[in-house]
Amino acid sequence: MKNSFGTSVIVTLFGESHGPAVGGVLDGLAPGIPVDPDFIARQLQLRRPYGKISTPRVEADKFEILSGVFEGRTTGTPLCIVIPNENTASKSYAKLRTLARPGHADYTAHAKYHGFADYRGGGHFSGRITAALTALGAVAIAALRDKGIVIGTHIARCAGVPDRDFCDLDADLAALSERVFPVLDEAAGQAMQAAIAAAGADGDSVGGVLESCVTGLPAGVGEPWFDSLEGVLSHGLFSIPGVKGVQFGAGFDLADARGSEFNDEFYMDGGAVRTRTNHNGGVNGGICNGMPLRFSCMVKPTPSIFKPQNTVDFEQNEDAVLRLEGRHDPAILHRARVVVDSVAALVLADQLALRFGTDWLRKQP
Amino acid sequence: MKNSFGTSVIVTLFGESHGPAVGGVLDGLAPGIPVDPDFIARQLQLRRPYGKISTPRVEADKFEILSGVFEGRTTGTPLCIVIPNENTASKSYAKLRTLARPGHADYTAHAKYHGFADYRGGGHFSGRITAALTALGAVAIAALRDKGIVIGTHIARCAGVPDRDFCDLDADLAALSERVFPVLDEAAGQAMQAAIAAAGADGDSVGGVLESCVTGLPAGVGEPWFDSLEGVLSHGLFSIPGVKGVQFGAGFDLADARGSEFNDEFYMDGGAVRTRTNHNGGVNGGICNGMPLRFSCMVKPTPSIFKPQNTVDFEQNEDAVLRLEGRHDPAILHRARVVVDSVAALVLADQLALRFGTDWLRKQP
Amino acid sequence: MKNSFGTSVIVTLFGESHGPAVGGVLDGLAPGIPVDPDFIARQLQLRRPYGKISTPRVEADKFEILSGVFEGRTTGTPLCIVIPNENTASKSYAKLRTLARPGHADYTAHAKYHGFADYRGGGHFSGRITAALTALGAVAIAALRDKGIVIGTHIARCAGVPDRDFCDLDADLAALSERVFPVLDEAAGQAMQAAIAAAGADGDSVGGVLESCVTGLPAGVGEPWFDSLEGVLSHGLFSIPGVKGVQFGAGFDLADARGSEFNDEFYMDGGAVRTRTNHNGGVNGGICNGMPLRFSCMVKPTPSIFKPQNTVDFEQNEDAVLRLEGRHDPAILHRARVVVDSVAALVLADQLALRFGTDWLRKQP
Amino acid sequence: MKNSFGTSVIVTLFGESHGPAVGGVLDGLAPGIPVDPDFIARQLQLRRPYGKISTPRVEADKFEILSGVFEGRTTGTPLCIVIPNENTASKSYAKLRTLARPGHADYTAHAKYHGFADYRGGGHFSGRITAALTALGAVAIAALRDKGIVIGTHIARCAGVPDRDFCDLDADLAALSERVFPVLDEAAGQAMQAAIAAAGADGDSVGGVLESCVTGLPAGVGEPWFDSLEGVLSHGLFSIPGVKGVQFGAGFDLADARGSEFNDEFYMDGGAVRTRTNHNGGVNGGICNGMPLRFSCMVKPTPSIFKPQNTVDFEQNEDAVLRLEGRHDPAILHRARVVVDSVAALVLADQLALRFGTDWLRKQP
Repeated sequence: MKNSFGTSVIVTLFGESHGPAVGGVLDGLAPGIPVDPDFIARQLQLRRPYGKISTPRVEADKFEILSGVFEGRTTGTPLCIVIPNENTASKSYAKLRTLARPGHADYTAHAKYHGFADYRGGGHFSGRITAALTALGAVAIAALRDKGIVIGTHIARCAGVPDRDFCDLDADLAALSERVFPVLDEAAGQAMQAAIAAAGADGDSVGGVLESCVTGLPAGVGEPWFDSLEGVLSHGLFSIPGVKGVQFGAGFDLADARGSEFNDEFYMDGGAVRTRTNHNGGVNGGICNGMPLRFSCMVKPTPSIFKPQNTVDFEQNEDAVLRLEGRHDPAILHRARVVVDSVAALVLADQLALRFGTDWLRKQP
Repeated sequence: MKNSFGTSVIVTLFGESHGPAVGGVLDGLAPGIPVDPDFIARQLQLRRPYGKISTPRVEADKFEILSGVFEGRTTGTPLCIVIPNENTASKSYAKLRTLARPGHADYTAHAKYHGFADYRGGGHFSGRITAALTALGAVAIAALRDKGIVIGTHIARCAGVPDRDFCDLDADLAALSERVFPVLDEAAGQAMQAAIAAAGADGDSVGGVLESCVTGLPAGVGEPWFDSLEGVLSHGLFSIPGVKGVQFGAGFDLADARGSEFNDEFYMDGGAVRTRTNHNGGVNGGICNGMPLRFSCMVKPTPSIFKPQNTVDFEQNEDAVLRLEGRHDPAILHRARVVVDSVAALVLADQLALRFGTDWLRKQP
Repeated sequence: MKNSFGTSVIVTLFGESHGPAVGGVLDGLAPGIPVDPDFIARQLQLRRPYGKISTPRVEADKFEILSGVFEGRTTGTPLCIVIPNENTASKSYAKLRTLARPGHADYTAHAKYHGFADYRGGGHFSGRITAALTALGAVAIAALRDKGIVIGTHIARCAGVPDRDFCDLDADLAALSERVFPVLDEAAGQAMQAAIAAAGADGDSVGGVLESCVTGLPAGVGEPWFDSLEGVLSHGLFSIPGVKGVQFGAGFDLADARGSEFNDEFYMDGGAVRTRTNHNGGVNGGICNGMPLRFSCMVKPTPSIFKPQNTVDFEQNEDAVLRLEGRHDPAILHRARVVVDSVAALVLADQLALRFGTDWLRKQP
Repeated sequence: MKNSFGTSVIVTLFGESHGPAVGGVLDGLAPGIPVDPDFIARQLQLRRPYGKISTPRVEADKFEILSGVFEGRTTGTPLCIVIPNENTASKSYAKLRTLARPGHADYTAHAKYHGFADYRGGGHFSGRITAALTALGAVAIAALRDKGIVIGTHIARCAGVPDRDFCDLDADLAALSERVFPVLDEAAGQAMQAAIAAAGADGDSVGGVLESCVTGLPAGVGEPWFDSLEGVLSHGLFSIPGVKGVQFGAGFDLADARGSEFNDEFYMDGGAVRTRTNHNGGVNGGICNGMPLRFSCMVKPTPSIFKPQNTVDFEQNEDAVLRLEGRHDPAILHRARVVVDSVAALVLADQLALRFGTDWLRKQP
């Protein structure tokens, strides 16, 4: 489906960084879900550059809902949100048009689209498209929250600086939702920001790991084999620019463990089945076991750096040296968190609609 | 699509561990591809238990091609392979029917299917279904090989023992295709097998990391956003039982790196664009850059262990202690490798058919 | 999806007329649905040749359920049914291999599959594949019936002989379910059979129109635009060999009417909204309005006739004359009816599962 | 996929009649296809009301391309076109909000969306959405034409008045592309327009049959079973509001024929395989045989009429009488023709991209 994803709740993306607009269409969401423009604006704000550690390209991210909302609620028909592009600075890109920026899609876009792609600012490969994903995701996040399903993401690791682990999950998720720089331990957050600023001062960049939790997902959601929760979530998460690894529960961290350590023992907690540990990330056999869903995304260091880099001119087929100018973030982890939350919400809304029907997500009065 | 995957080349799985058979259907493969039953049998043999480190349940894995092959070649119509189940020992499972094996899908299957699932031997969640995936994957692996696209996987890490990295890729892939226990450094393989045996002796199990490489994939294959190569491959790979993490290139291993370390600089190598490092795993912006595709799967320790484990009886809703009997592997990494190769081949065959048309995969005379 | 169809409830077909077997996989059906082998056998019996008006190739249509049924009920995992081929007479086809039978897929299969398709008996294009569709459809038909949704089809017209219209729908549908030659007016049925026999005696064949009704479908099922009930049903129905037209309600029959005649006026019938006429076939804007779903399929005359026909040899690229031998039905309308019912049931089961969730189709105790 | 359609070339629709805009996204089209805004405008003009026989709501149908076009050519990434709504007259609808207009989707939308749908002007069910389909279809029509594939549609029958049949197909298709009221015999067109005007004078409406031909489609395009050309085309065509029947070739018109009349005999025409008749509409076994693709759509009489109609108030659950005011076409056949062409082009572009790869549709220099 290329730029669309989902089976019952389907998101479609469009737009280029320096074209008229980016946007997306969300189809299949239940009718009657409240749509709060302020919440969408707030989520877009979280995706914006932040303080000294981000690019000075600050866009208003004004969005327009073109369809699918009537009298403040979803209609059940496709919801289209468009975010016009403003403040674009195309010239600094034009002169580097045929130099492949390492870690970027310039060369692969050239190979795939034969030179017809809009190269300005990364075109359709720009992280700017995630603004559309964020706006649509906001509607899904709010709808899930009204059904008791809460999603949150923190920077588990950045530039070698670890955050603390989740402990009191409800409190941690509530705290994260208030934080522009999403860490559980604010001292760790200060250290991360210092490391980001240091990298930026060197004309360099950093990456790290985002860890997410989802509470309130009913046991039994998911599918065996190809549409395992791991399969559909990772499919969505790898669409986020810079994500190069996805793990559920402990993942690679416990690659050396034995089964007796890794297995999550079950116990009865009142009438509820729970596990004492959550190394499987709340998923057994592709299906939610009622424990919090837990997954991590490795986000590579931002590929745009100011250090000179060896590369090729893919039209001249010759070696070249790239010296980037313009505006670039030394880290995008903090901005990517809201995109991770959005993708997770859209994927889970789809799974829930498949499992319980298209009306399920509607808040009951 | 649940138990089906793919857009132009589509695989569908069916079967239960202790039912009459497991099997699968492969639709959309080009006509005229040679189908070698011996190669399918050999791939199935690689998936079988091996020596002292695997379960004594040894099945002949006799398979029957029900459709889609005529006079030794694919017809272009759906190819169905069925593998009858034999040598099943259902009784040892029946008495534990309502005890949730930690790390297994017993409880989640109960939550999803309301007690109607075939519980014997894990039913539809059994690793036995991967025999069907392996048989169908063999056809795709051979077809890709005829087009110069070679897939290989080694155990990069098992029970804390690392294998060496890929170096001479063509030679390494050739060597791996001959090895039942797929490592690059045979001494490391001996140490891994000793560690597996030791865990087995303790009634315990181990996991690890499988690393894969694909050579010969043309630059420009893949899609931006949702159908990135990372997205579609991870979707497929997470369907393999036990896989809890997928990364491309360096992934989590370089989470602490800076952009100047992580970025893969381009250079001209004769007329070809190449990169000096391959931390991005051959994928930029979701699209193949012509370098080898490189990804890793974290495989958790086999959840079936012989140590007593605390769990619940999900019909009685009470705590219980599980003492597994029967036959179980202390490790499945070496057996899972051929499943990883198969999934990768099926996913890439799909992407290539989408990109170049349904006839492309046919070997030209 | 080629040989698969559906979004939440998905059917996949495989097999060739003279290969080892035909079969299919049904994925996504709710768990706990009773599966009655006798009803499947009975439906297959309805698809078999009948009396003097059908081919003497009479197969036992023994089927085997390979997966997805446990202790007499669906498990919720993929249900695979295989029907071995027996009594095949391949020789009579081999000598005509490169002569394109008019109205058949011989030439188009050659154009698409470059000569690799199994040509024997029409290969994958054989009406024999509908046995698999019928077996899987039987499970869906029974499940829908348990939820109060009843499907029935009659021969509305054959060889110029019209059946009477539906009148007392419940009684008519009950009567049809008992009839091997499905007409409402048995005298019309006698006239049709005489016309079929007369065509057969001339070495010729006839076609006609099948009209179907579905009662009990809840208002609100369906989608606007592309997944209108008309869209998804016609997509499925046109897969039935020989169907060359599909209409909903009056369709082409009222092409000359005015809006005041065609529109179905609403009225309250007790608490229920109903329409006085049903020219729209129970569908407004792609969505069920609670009235019976009504649609018709035009089935072309069986293309296999014994009269000499001009054609081409598509390997020699020269004109030729075809003289068919072997066994061929002068009409397939009566046999196709159970296939129409099956396709309708599978498509509606999918729509209902999408609308109300995957558990909905399960009969509640 | 609800409001999306296609596998490799995918169209997604959004919008409501009286919301800010209608629009659509076209994904998967080859890069480098020229996009001519004047041709899009011309196609939109053909969809507009025409002369005395159409509604006085005349909108400028100004469209904006938001993405996917760069320097006058497709980029290969999603192409989004938005058409703002203007000149909306919502008030005349508001007072009839809960009266189900016979033949319209008011009641079914209420049943499906629980009262949350935008009811104004039919909301998402409005024929206005076909403006988006027309704009996107224009790009596909032009791309196909550059590859020698030409699509044309005439009003084969309106209000009982027949047009002549296609004879010199290339000349007929060329003539149709120039005509606002698309008939082959202009005298028949005059008679049809008189009949439409007479119905309008009576406060009534008429429908009819649109017949389409596509030349230049290569033999071998299409799939057996579910993705037969008939299946995918009908799926798309039934999404057009008012279409209640679709047939290929002769369809229902030859329901009474014998096989010897219906079968299309093959012959060699130079090096090309052709058929003498085309009762199968160019499709055998779901796959194009190289003859012109031929299909017809029955379009019901416009449901909006000015005669008083009995209906129900679906909120009060009581009988009511509807007296429509406002602006309504007594016929939409002539306007629907460009929508039929658009849907056919989009569906065929998808099939061609699947068959020959995503680059095929690009005009070679």
